[in-house]
Amino acid sequence: MPLIVAGSVALDDLATPFGERKNLLGGSAVHAGVSASFFTPVKLVGVVGEDFPREHVDFLKQRKIDIEGLKVIKGKTFHWEGYYEYDMNQAHTVKTDLNVLSQFDPELPESYRKSKYVFLANLDPELQLRILDQVAAPKLVVADTMNYWIENKKDALEEVVRRSDIMLFNDTEAREFTKVPNLIVAAKKILDMGAKNVIIKKGEHGALLFSKDLHFSAPSFPQEDLIDPTGAGDSFAGGLIGYLAKCGGTRTEDLKKAIIIGSVMASFNVEDFSLDSLRKLRNDQITKRYSMFRRFVEFEELPDNYI
Amino acid sequence: MPLIVAGSVALDDLATPFGERKNLLGGSAVHAGVSASFFTPVKLVGVVGEDFPREHVDFLKQRKIDIEGLKVIKGKTFHWEGYYEYDMNQAHTVKTDLNVLSQFDPELPESYRKSKYVFLANLDPELQLRILDQVAAPKLVVADTMNYWIENKKDALEEVVRRSDIMLFNDTEAREFTKVPNLIVAAKKILDMGAKNVIIKKGEHGALLFSKDLHFSAPSFPQEDLIDPTGAGDSFAGGLIGYLAKCGGTRTEDLKKAIIIGSVMASFNVEDFSLDSLRKLRNDQITKRYSMFRRFVEFEELPDNYI
Repeated sequence: MPLIVAGSVALDDLATPFGERKNLLGGSAVHAGVSASFFTPVKLVGVVGEDFPREHVDFLKQRKIDIEGLKVIKGKTFHWEGYYEYDMNQAHTVKTDLNVLSQFDPELPESYRKSKYVFLANLDPELQLRILDQVAAPKLVVADTMNYWIENKKDALEEVVRRSDIMLFNDTEAREFTKVPNLIVAAKKILDMGAKNVIIKKGEHGALLFSKDLHFSAPSFPQEDLIDPTGAGDSFAGGLIGYLAKCGGTRTEDLKKAIIIGSVMASFNVEDFSLDSLRKLRNDQITKRYSMFRRFVEFEELPDNYI
Repeated sequence: MPLIVAGSVALDDLATPFGERKNLLGGSAVHAGVSASFFTPVKLVGVVGEDFPREHVDFLKQRKIDIEGLKVIKGKTFHWEGYYEYDMNQAHTVKTDLNVLSQFDPELPESYRKSKYVFLANLDPELQLRILDQVAAPKLVVADTMNYWIENKKDALEEVVRRSDIMLFNDTEAREFTKVPNLIVAAKKILDMGAKNVIIKKGEHGALLFSKDLHFSAPSFPQEDLIDPTGAGDSFAGGLIGYLAKCGGTRTEDLKKAIIIGSVMASFNVEDFSLDSLRKLRNDQITKRYSMFRRFVEFEELPDNYI
């Protein structure tokens, strides 16, 4: 089933302990869209400037991503400059140039509007809502955000939470959004606000799923080759909703599998700069790593009356 | 099978957002010993002063803990004073009075020396080694430590690591001990130093097991009622080795079950001050929560050739 992925498209400059790179392909919609494209047809919504390199457009097309909804407007593409220190857990922003993103007025092509699956990647929540309003009858809405919107557009973000089937936060954001230090209590508060499911992304510590009747804990991949964490959360989300769009399911068991698929995609994403790892990724590597995730968490039941 | 638990016995003063308590029963050997006592006979090794309340001795006896190895010497019992802020993830020490612990010269009673299972709870690593030297033929040695010994007794601690079947660190300690920020790489470095297995305790994020051929990720319990985290790591370790001593096993499957049992015991330990939650704990609550842990991580395999 076709999936709308809306968010930022960026050119990134970044430095990690493993090297420096300039003008890398990035942005929340790109990491999520490419990740999702392994599972389902993707319809991208975003904006770039006239400087956006042809080769990146070609790469998106090669991934069979529909770019009718990718506007090219006068000016420069959104640009993020940042670095990671040796522990790699925290991105440090040097500079954010919104450029054309500041004038983004999303208008979905006709061919997008009947899509049932929608991923609202990190973006101004007012834009997320404007995009969602243009989808006739969404079946599954997944939304992501970041600390900036929590601090500056809380009301619009709360509306996004209310309208999402799966709301994504990282652990710090969930605490900041709810003003509750306990993650479990924070997640329940987000459910109370109207999200049907909440996923708390914990980076190197995996991810937690909460819904009314369910708690699921996904492990992280024991990552020795962590080269560039940029886009990890977006590729997680792309794998998650890409898988759900593929199988058309919203059963609990589908959701759990989707979270593991998301974790698998994120684990590949961080093994090289930008999208370079996903460029080379094969389907059999995905299914193999999925099985590894199962082995990481499997343990036997206790015998009856054991203690 | 009888199990030696050696470590500190303490009287704690602490403050959490849920209240203040003075002269609480605490210490690494007490939290670990009481937790282990749900599974196997425990032989305690430690030292207290003449001020150690009779009621605490009675409680240990009631848990069928052998206290022949608990020395009472002239002076005051080891005393820790600390507090937790609202996020509860970090203990802040106000004062540590070693008192009689500074003169502790552990000498195992004859009846202890043939024990096969040994838990060296957090204690000066030189004392840990002196205790281990008195055990004739240990079958399974589990050891824990803390940042103070990493900073001040590195050589002795490295010897403990070499001689341990299962070495425990929390995530911060593992990074500090190995000077490696990546936890996976840090764990492998500890294995290279001679530990047969390493467990990285991550508090609210669960625990990771590493050995030469195995990686296992244990989830944490989604804890809403976190009242007092003191002793969480010790009750984890006590449940872990208590279970292994009970089943006599060292198979991979036993080890994984033991880590979940440890996680279950820690999850109960933190639900009230001091040992108060374990005082009331019943075996059926342990097995019930164990099953909950399984449900938190279970997910289905992907169908063949799915992607």
